Amino acid sequence: MSLVESAAQFAPHPYVSPYAFEPVQGRDAVRGEVALELNLRHAGCRALRVRYEAVGPAGAPAVLVAGGISADRHVVASGAFPQAGWWQAQAGTFAGLRVIAIDWLGADGALDAPIDSADQADAIAGVLDALGVRTLAAFVGCSYGAMVGLQFAANHGERLRHLVAISGAHRAHPYASAWRALQRKIVALGQLQCAEDQGLSLARQLAILSYRTPQEFAERFDAAAVVDGARARCASEDYLDACGSRFVERFDATAYTRLSESIDLHSVDASRIAVTTTVVGVEDDLLVPIADCYALVEQVRADTQVRVLRSKYGHDAFLKETDAVAAILRAVFADCRGGAA
Amino acid sequence: MSLVESAAQFAPHPYVSPYAFEPVQGRDAVRGEVALELNLRHAGCRALRVRYEAVGPAGAPAVLVAGGISADRHVVASGAFPQAGWWQAQAGTFAGLRVIAIDWLGADGALDAPIDSADQADAIAGVLDALGVRTLAAFVGCSYGAMVGLQFAANHGERLRHLVAISGAHRAHPYASAWRALQRKIVALGQLQCAEDQGLSLARQLAILSYRTPQEFAERFDAAAVVDGARARCASEDYLDACGSRFVERFDATAYTRLSESIDLHSVDASRIAVTTTVVGVEDDLLVPIADCYALVEQVRADTQVRVLRSKYGHDAFLKETDAVAAILRAVFADCRGGAA
Repeated sequence: MSLVESAAQFAPHPYVSPYAFEPVQGRDAVRGEVALELNLRHAGCRALRVRYEAVGPAGAPAVLVAGGISADRHVVASGAFPQAGWWQAQAGTFAGLRVIAIDWLGADGALDAPIDSADQADAIAGVLDALGVRTLAAFVGCSYGAMVGLQFAANHGERLRHLVAISGAHRAHPYASAWRALQRKIVALGQLQCAEDQGLSLARQLAILSYRTPQEFAERFDAAAVVDGARARCASEDYLDACGSRFVERFDATAYTRLSESIDLHSVDASRIAVTTTVVGVEDDLLVPIADCYALVEQVRADTQVRVLRSKYGHDAFLKETDAVAAILRAVFADCRGGAA
Repeated sequence: MSLVESAAQFAPHPYVSPYAFEPVQGRDAVRGEVALELNLRHAGCRALRVRYEAVGPAGAPAVLVAGGISADRHVVASGAFPQAGWWQAQAGTFAGLRVIAIDWLGADGALDAPIDSADQADAIAGVLDALGVRTLAAFVGCSYGAMVGLQFAANHGERLRHLVAISGAHRAHPYASAWRALQRKIVALGQLQCAEDQGLSLARQLAILSYRTPQEFAERFDAAAVVDGARARCASEDYLDACGSRFVERFDATAYTRLSESIDLHSVDASRIAVTTTVVGVEDDLLVPIADCYALVEQVRADTQVRVLRSKYGHDAFLKETDAVAAILRAVFADCRGGAA
């Protein structure tokens, strides 16, 4: 296991994020890549590289932040890496903490094998080793990141003080799995027919439907369908098309398939978790029923709380309900800062 | 407008149902085809043929029965046409009535143009003319059939005594429309890439998800996903694959696209309805929110009632909750029979 901090060592993979070639060490943030040998649950032993970013004061309490399968290591902007991160809205909430995040195993499309959420947790542990971080004050995971957080708590619990699992539970719900299985089949249809972009775009559009709610669509896309040429066109189609196109520009079909699979392979025995856990569920989440959040906390063998949000944004509430999420995180971080060395 | 009762006059279309070439006139049922000139809302004047079936005593109160876009004119088995119909479970409920049904305009794939739910209502009116049926005791419509029933009540209300609209409202819900728009795009992707069957199968599987509920999937497909070869496979995939394959055998991609569009083009000003109306909604229907059922009855200018079912089968409750639906229909038909000549 070795820490690689030189930009020259980034593999020139076609799907590598463009910022991989920017300066790695900034005043207030660092990006790097860690070479690990991981024993993958479903794919055997592999030599892999894991990209990470850490932002915030070096001595501050360390918080691992993980989002959905399409999120990456760039959580919030910094002086060194000024682009907006995927959770930019929570930048103020993370102030004074050292935020660490990774690009998911498989996110570059190079690892074409089944990936377990527990593999991701191992990768995070490896990155923390390389960074010299023994204990996380908190692991804040959203969606797939919550699943990985639960695996981290189960398998590396001695390294974690507080888990915050937002919109993710101990299992993938069977209905949500069916929804994702169809997305993967659409990607596969596109790949088979030399229409990879169209397949991936349609899969993403289908995912967007599952991330949002009927209420939101009723408000945003109230207009009746119209006949456009010789076809009917619904009010939401422009929006969904745009979501699909943007996604195709930044995401790889193989990466999508493997990370989508990883959600469905996720299963953790939460009775193995002995870490203080805050579970945040959303009443209108079409992918993670609130009942699964309650079932989860009933199994955890430590202090737990469930916070329930109502949001027309459903599964995407963690990205959209900034104030409500910030209030929950601030309460957790107040404890972290209190407990910092 | 002419009544065509001869089997020889059935057009030998590749998608024609196999029973079209069976004997047309039976002891207790009749099948035929009516040639109509219809002024389609979005596609101009067209010479079309509409296939119908009528079963039950000739002098009994006439009830038009219409199901979803994949339902057809064969509602229940008879001596003449003994195959099980799509609503066979309700055969006893219809006893003593004359049940009339059509194959939807566009169902054979030959009419490749936008079709309005109001066009279907006009087609039904034409079939009733040809059959010499002046007034329907009831129109029982489910899903798309409910939409067509509302159009029939709005545009041909003088011919109808009681409308029963099950799991269908005055509009397509914007979220449900988005879901269907994606299904149509999957079909189009398949058609464009010479993979029509795969596209149609995937679209159908996606539709099945929308017809059912998370609760049902959680009960039926509780097993975790497994790695099968180098792929993750979810517990529901065999079921969904089978649904898709069966559908491809009996349905045409163009028909699917045009009838799916027709749902999204549906919009009726229910304040034009002055017919006694029973609206049946299902609390867990992912396509037709119960709020739309209430909004509908508030607009109808006649006696109305809303009956709300709870069912883990969601939108498909009309096919699965046999007893609850039968109880509602029996109450309506008791009135019909009382009012029969």
